Amino acid sequence: MTLIVQKFGGTSMADPETIGLVADRVAAAQKTQQVVVVVSAMSGQTNQLVELANAVQETPDRREMDVLLSTGEQVSIALLSMALKSRGVEAQSFLGSQVRIHTDETHGKARIKSIDVEIIESALNQGKVAVVAGFQGVDQSGNITTLGRGGSDTSAVALAAALKADECQIYTDVDGVYTTDPRIEPDARRLEKITFEEMLEMASLGAKVLRIRSVEFAGKYQVPLRVLSTFKDGPGTLITLEEQKMEQALISGIAFNKDEAKITIRGVPDRPGVAYAILGKVADENIEVDMIIQNTGADGTTDFTFTVHRNDFKQTMDLLAPIATELKARDVHGDDRIVKVSVVGVGMRSHAGIASTMFKALSDEGINVEMISTSEIKISVVVNEKYLELAVRALHREFGLDQQKAD
Amino acid sequence: MTLIVQKFGGTSMADPETIGLVADRVAAAQKTQQVVVVVSAMSGQTNQLVELANAVQETPDRREMDVLLSTGEQVSIALLSMALKSRGVEAQSFLGSQVRIHTDETHGKARIKSIDVEIIESALNQGKVAVVAGFQGVDQSGNITTLGRGGSDTSAVALAAALKADECQIYTDVDGVYTTDPRIEPDARRLEKITFEEMLEMASLGAKVLRIRSVEFAGKYQVPLRVLSTFKDGPGTLITLEEQKMEQALISGIAFNKDEAKITIRGVPDRPGVAYAILGKVADENIEVDMIIQNTGADGTTDFTFTVHRNDFKQTMDLLAPIATELKARDVHGDDRIVKVSVVGVGMRSHAGIASTMFKALSDEGINVEMISTSEIKISVVVNEKYLELAVRALHREFGLDQQKAD
Repeated sequence: MTLIVQKFGGTSMADPETIGLVADRVAAAQKTQQVVVVVSAMSGQTNQLVELANAVQETPDRREMDVLLSTGEQVSIALLSMALKSRGVEAQSFLGSQVRIHTDETHGKARIKSIDVEIIESALNQGKVAVVAGFQGVDQSGNITTLGRGGSDTSAVALAAALKADECQIYTDVDGVYTTDPRIEPDARRLEKITFEEMLEMASLGAKVLRIRSVEFAGKYQVPLRVLSTFKDGPGTLITLEEQKMEQALISGIAFNKDEAKITIRGVPDRPGVAYAILGKVADENIEVDMIIQNTGADGTTDFTFTVHRNDFKQTMDLLAPIATELKARDVHGDDRIVKVSVVGVGMRSHAGIASTMFKALSDEGINVEMISTSEIKISVVVNEKYLELAVRALHREFGLDQQKAD
Repeated sequence: MTLIVQKFGGTSMADPETIGLVADRVAAAQKTQQVVVVVSAMSGQTNQLVELANAVQETPDRREMDVLLSTGEQVSIALLSMALKSRGVEAQSFLGSQVRIHTDETHGKARIKSIDVEIIESALNQGKVAVVAGFQGVDQSGNITTLGRGGSDTSAVALAAALKADECQIYTDVDGVYTTDPRIEPDARRLEKITFEEMLEMASLGAKVLRIRSVEFAGKYQVPLRVLSTFKDGPGTLITLEEQKMEQALISGIAFNKDEAKITIRGVPDRPGVAYAILGKVADENIEVDMIIQNTGADGTTDFTFTVHRNDFKQTMDLLAPIATELKARDVHGDDRIVKVSVVGVGMRSHAGIASTMFKALSDEGINVEMISTSEIKISVVVNEKYLELAVRALHREFGLDQQKAD
């Protein structure tokens, strides 16, 4: 008998009604398969708890925050187990500490070290559905830990790996991974399959179907992942271990990220240590830097450009003013009205010409490219935010994503 | 250094503001004593969770109900620990499963079997306040159990016994045990001390300051209990191991119970097995019977009277109709407009005449006594509910409770 792990997020666990829908899906799967279910907290609950914590302590204690937040998933496993039992399906709930999901001691963003599978396998062998609290684990002293944002996806993938499950199914409110955002390009298509590498690039570029960490984890442990909708029937998108076949698309999708800002320090004397002098301070403040470009000019000075999240823009600009003075740079120029648009596909590995096709398509639409960055399976450009929709639609059409058969 | 256990209920944990008041009390106590705090769920939270459970399963699974409800206390321990830390008090939260509070496997009303004190003693020796989740434990298989209503009081007393604490302080929204309900008798006084036996009778008679089970538990393990208010300074009432001294009051208080109903089966043939035939069926339905009186008449028949909670009145009447027919009784008569009023005091053991003083006082006010029941330290009468306030005030005055010095 095959064994699957199904993960349902907060919007699927919104209220008794949607919990009923989840129970129906689990009950249907359980007729032919062994099923382990991983659930998140009911949507909204985590925010309520965080508000309470902030009301009693300015910077809530991290250990106690984990004790507090882990109740969210505990409520979910109890309710889903009840909903399953009310449908005649034998089910049993498990906390992270009951399974045991061993983690390190980093409260708030713990890493899973190992998972004991005996107690879950025993429940499965008794014909039960095992309903496991996502997002939580236990450290070696018995303290409750949580895995940080997207932690329930990570729990599901880790359990699937530990149990050697045949598939890990992530249920969300979208029915799969699309060639691009259907709200921008109505002709966007659901992909039947996508590779882990492509999925990683899509996720990192704002296609927030899955958290990067869980995709990395699934890739590392070779757990087949499938993204499906709780609310709509369909096969979803399989995130596959194999590369797509040669006759497949060069490009799988067009991803974009609206929340970028760009900062340029112009006329920096071109000498060793400049990049560190600039980015070291930024990193010290825990500001994440995305793209980095440095161009050397003819006059012995260089222009240094990088992008950050739009929320970090002002803080980064403030941080750089004294550094620019210190480095005797000409000036600091910022622009928080930019977006990043990328084409992603493992096919580009073996095909030249993707970049030129991309730049021609943008140029034909009169879109000025401000920055370019490439990886093995991705080409990203930064453009003014007013061109976002135009660029996405032009590239989607240029690479024929609206016409290809899905598989 | 003395060690105290402090227990705070749901109304004390109502919101961040009252949690702050609790933290202030604990912080003050911790300056001179080792402190273990036991807390209940925030008021209202348990009802919300029960509603959710009822929405997903008609009769919620008992194991999963315990998983669900135990989150309430888990939220409370995390928030109180944060509030203490924000006041510079070192604190650490403990779940029932972390302490470990071992119970039997009866979900929803588990009994405590033993408590491991090492982990709490270690926290205390590190100068920390130990903040323990009330109401919950863990069975031998690692399942979460809950102790049923009033379970947090029981947790506090059991912890105090296991830790050999000097005192167990139960904080509520009243500032002690009174000679009677001040809402009915404005001259009611707070008692400085009361014995366990008296407290048991007061609690069982509707003076709901403490749950009977926790008082029994405290008496059995000789843990000094003190009832105090979270919201008002004062010494509260000490529930003491020693009997009150001889010069003390004969009577400690006037208790009453408004929620009674009386049922009489008249003209039952007087033969063995009749009481069982009647009460066996009632017990089978889990209806609790309070007072029972049987009087044999001259004609070989007997009248059988008992009282039940007013909520169970209709069901009990319906249950008795066929039984009365079967027993060939004359009829069944019910009255749900009655109340029980009692005088309680260990002093009555060594003093005759309490009963006659009581009946005279009621008779002087023209109050008809419908039933009488006595125990070693209590005399109860059933009267029509319209006489409740009059009876309580008359007895409070008659036994001089408004005038005695408290200690």
